[in-house]
Amino acid sequence: MSVEPRLLEVRKNVLKQNDVIARELRERFRTQRTFVVSLVSSPGAGKTAFLEKTLTLLQPHYRVAALVGDLATENDAVRLARSQAPVRQITTGTLCHLEAAMVDNALKEWGIGKLDFLFIENVGNLVCPSSYDLGENLRLVLLSVTEGEDKPLKYPTIFNSADVAVITKMDLAEAVEFDEETVKANIQAVRPGMRHFAVSAKSGVGLQEYLQFLTARIAEPMQQEPA
Amino acid sequence: MSVEPRLLEVRKNVLKQNDVIARELRERFRTQRTFVVSLVSSPGAGKTAFLEKTLTLLQPHYRVAALVGDLATENDAVRLARSQAPVRQITTGTLCHLEAAMVDNALKEWGIGKLDFLFIENVGNLVCPSSYDLGENLRLVLLSVTEGEDKPLKYPTIFNSADVAVITKMDLAEAVEFDEETVKANIQAVRPGMRHFAVSAKSGVGLQEYLQFLTARIAEPMQQEPA
Repeated sequence: MSVEPRLLEVRKNVLKQNDVIARELRERFRTQRTFVVSLVSSPGAGKTAFLEKTLTLLQPHYRVAALVGDLATENDAVRLARSQAPVRQITTGTLCHLEAAMVDNALKEWGIGKLDFLFIENVGNLVCPSSYDLGENLRLVLLSVTEGEDKPLKYPTIFNSADVAVITKMDLAEAVEFDEETVKANIQAVRPGMRHFAVSAKSGVGLQEYLQFLTARIAEPMQQEPA
Repeated sequence: MSVEPRLLEVRKNVLKQNDVIARELRERFRTQRTFVVSLVSSPGAGKTAFLEKTLTLLQPHYRVAALVGDLATENDAVRLARSQAPVRQITTGTLCHLEAAMVDNALKEWGIGKLDFLFIENVGNLVCPSSYDLGENLRLVLLSVTEGEDKPLKYPTIFNSADVAVITKMDLAEAVEFDEETVKANIQAVRPGMRHFAVSAKSGVGLQEYLQFLTARIAEPMQQEPA
C-alpha cells in the first residue's frame, strides 16, 4: 500500500505531540504531588468495577478523583460516582484510546483541587492505548479470568507498556477453570519481573494487598519519570 | 492538533483502497459460491471457542475453512485446527484489525480449493475492525455475558457494522447475573432489528439455532452486496 509510509510518518508526529503534552502533565502531577494511575484492558475486563472499589476504599483517607474514557455514553462516570469521589467522563467518539491532550483539557475544564490520587480509566482496548503516554506514574493492565490465559502473549505491546498486571474477576476463576500459573508464566514471558495482583471487586479478594501497594507508592518521594 | 486533518485524509485513502480490494474479494466469493462469515469481538469474548465449535459441526457436511487474525502467536490457528478444518493464521504485528489485502494475500498464498463457508476471525477489538470491509457476506459481533450489558451502547460503531449479534458464554450467565433483556434492548437501541443468538460453546446451548440460520444462508441465492 503506497499510503502506508505516509500514515506511519503522520502517526509518528501525533505520538511526538502526545509525548510532549504527557511530559508536561507528568511534571505538573509531580509538583502537585498527585500520584496518577491509569487502567487499560479489553472491554468488559472489569476496569470500572475495580476502579469503583478502589475509589470507595481510598476515598475516606485520601483525596481521590477519576477520569474515565469511552467512545460513547457516560455510564462509567455514573457508576464511578457511587464511590462519592469526583469523576469526569471523556468521550472519544470513534477514537480507541485516550490521549494526553484529552486528559489535559479535561483537567483544565474540571478545575479539580489538590489530589493524592488521580485515576484514569482508558477506553476498553488491548491495542490502541499502548503507545499513548498519559503522564501517569503507574499503568495497570487488567485481564479478567474469563478472557483466557494467553492474552499477554497475544497482546505483548500493551503488557510491555504497563507497570503492573491485575487479574480480575477471581470469583469466577473456578467456573472458567482459570489457570493462574499459566497466566503468570505468560506475563513473565512478555514482561519479565512484572508484578501482578489477583483480585475480585465482587468478593473483595486481593484488594487489600493491591491497596497497600498503591498507598505505599505515595509515601515514597515521587520520581519525575515513571518506573 | 495540527496533524489531525492530515491523519484523517491519509486514513480515508487507506479505507478507500481497502474498499476496492474488499469489493473484488466479495465478487470472487460470489462467483465461487463461498459464503464468508467474519467474527469481531473484544479480546477474550470467545470467538475462537465458538468458531472451533462451528467448524467442528459444519465440517462433516460442508467444505469449510478459517482465517484467523491476531497481533502475535499462532495459538488460535492451533486451537481451530482441532476441528479438522483447514485453518490459516494472519499475524498483524501492531495492527488492531484485519484488512481486505491481508485476507486477499492469505488466500492467494494458501491456494485453498472450493469452499462452502470461509470464516474470518478478526483481531480481538471492539473499535478498529469496524471500518474495514473484508468482503464478507455476514459479520457477526460477539459479546460474552461476562463483559457487561452496556457494550452495544459503548461501542455502537462496531455493532452498526455487524449484521448479527452473538451472545457467548451463556453457561456463565447465572454466575455473573447476566440480564439478557437489557442486552437485547441495548442492541436494538444502537441497531434496530438486529438479530441475536445466545449461545455457549461449552454447553452447546443455542448452537443448533445459529447453525440452522447459517446453513439456510447458503441455500439462498447469494447477493453481491452484504445484507
